[in-house]
Amino acid sequence: MSSHHIVRDDQEPALIIANGAACNPELLGQLLEWSPLVIVLDSAIERVVDLGIKVDVLLGDFDRGFDPEIYKTTQYPIEIVHTPDQDKTDLEKAFDYLIERKIPAVNVIWATGKRADHTITNLTNIVRYRNLLKIVILDDHSKIFLLPNKFEKWYTENTPISLIPIGVVNGIFSDNLVYPLHNDTLTIGYRTSSSNAVSKDGIVTITHTDGDLLLMECFD
Amino acid sequence: MSSHHIVRDDQEPALIIANGAACNPELLGQLLEWSPLVIVLDSAIERVVDLGIKVDVLLGDFDRGFDPEIYKTTQYPIEIVHTPDQDKTDLEKAFDYLIERKIPAVNVIWATGKRADHTITNLTNIVRYRNLLKIVILDDHSKIFLLPNKFEKWYTENTPISLIPIGVVNGIFSDNLVYPLHNDTLTIGYRTSSSNAVSKDGIVTITHTDGDLLLMECFD
Repeated sequence: MSSHHIVRDDQEPALIIANGAACNPELLGQLLEWSPLVIVLDSAIERVVDLGIKVDVLLGDFDRGFDPEIYKTTQYPIEIVHTPDQDKTDLEKAFDYLIERKIPAVNVIWATGKRADHTITNLTNIVRYRNLLKIVILDDHSKIFLLPNKFEKWYTENTPISLIPIGVVNGIFSDNLVYPLHNDTLTIGYRTSSSNAVSKDGIVTITHTDGDLLLMECFD
Repeated sequence: MSSHHIVRDDQEPALIIANGAACNPELLGQLLEWSPLVIVLDSAIERVVDLGIKVDVLLGDFDRGFDPEIYKTTQYPIEIVHTPDQDKTDLEKAFDYLIERKIPAVNVIWATGKRADHTITNLTNIVRYRNLLKIVILDDHSKIFLLPNKFEKWYTENTPISLIPIGVVNGIFSDNLVYPLHNDTLTIGYRTSSSNAVSKDGIVTITHTDGDLLLMECFD
C-alpha cells in the first residue's frame, strides 16, 4: 500500500487520515495510490502503522500521553508537526498546514464514525475553508464536499444526492433532481434536501445565492 | 432480551431502533430492559429480528421491495404503520407517531453511522420536536439531546461535553465547564464548543437566550 510514493505531484490531492472510524481497506488503497502526501492525525498513527502505510506527516497536539518521537525512526523520513492550539481541531490544523504549503486539494478519511461530536464538527467545519482548500470527506457510505455557488456535474440516473445546509442557504435552484429546488431556502434542522436523487443520466446543476451548502453522495 | 415486556409503563421512554449502524449489544440490552414500546424503522427489522428482539411497532415507507406482512405472524402481536410521506424521514414519522400516542419521551439507537446524510439529518432534525417530545439519541460513543434554555445536571469532573449549535445560538452562559461561555454566540460550521469538559464534580449549568443547542456527551 506504499505505492503512493511512486507518484509525487502536489497537484494531486493530499490525503488526511483523521482519528474516527476506519474505512474499508479498498477505499484506503485507492486514495493512497494517488496521494503525494499522507498526513495522519495524532494517535490515529498507531492504527495506520498497523496497516503497513508509510506516513509523510504526523500532526496533532499529542496531549494524551502519546509519544510521536518513536515514529521518527520507524517511519523515516517523517515530518512531525506539534500543534498545541486548543481552539482548533487537529483536522482544522491539518487543513491550515496544507494551505501554508500551498497544496490546493485534500481527501479526508476516518473523519466520521465513533464520536458524534467529532463527526458533526468535521463535516460542518469544512465550510470555513471555501476558496482556501478543496476538501472532500469520504467514508464507506459517503462522499461529502462544499458546493460552489454554481455546481455542475454529470451523474447517472438515480444517484442519491443529499443537500445539507450548514446554517441557512438561500436562492437554491436545481436541474435534473427528482425533488427539484426552485428558489428554495434550506435550513439545518428544519428543512434539508436529504435523500434527493438524479432524475436521468446527465448534468446536474445546483446553484445558490448565499450560505454554505454541502453535497453528499451517499449509498447504503 | 425480551424482558422489556414485563414492564409496561408509558412514562418510561419508548425505544426507536433506526436504520443506521448497530450499537453494541450491551447498550441495546440496557435500553430494552426499560422500554415499554419498541419501534423499528423499515428494513432494520431484518437485523433486529436476528437479535431475538420482540418488536411492538414496525414503521416505514417500505419502498424498496420489502414486505412487512411476514412479521405479522412471526412478531405477533405487532402494529405495522405504513408511512409513505416522502417529505419526512422514517425517524420523523416515528416521532410523530409517538406524539400522536401522547408518549412523552424516546431513546433512539442505530440513528448514526453508515450514511453521513442520514446521520447529520437524524442528529439535527430533533430540534424541531422541542416541547413536543423528549428525544435522546445514543450510540456506542455518544449521548445527544436538545438543551432547554436553562439546563442543569450533575456531572463528574472531566466528563467530555460538546455544545453543537444547529444554526446560530445566542446568549450562551456556562458554569463549571473547562472552556467557559459568557454571553457567547455559537454558529454551526464556524464556532462551536466541541470537546469542552466538566471542570469539577458538581452541577453544570448552561443557559442560552435563543437558537437550538445540542449537548453531546461523547467518549472514545
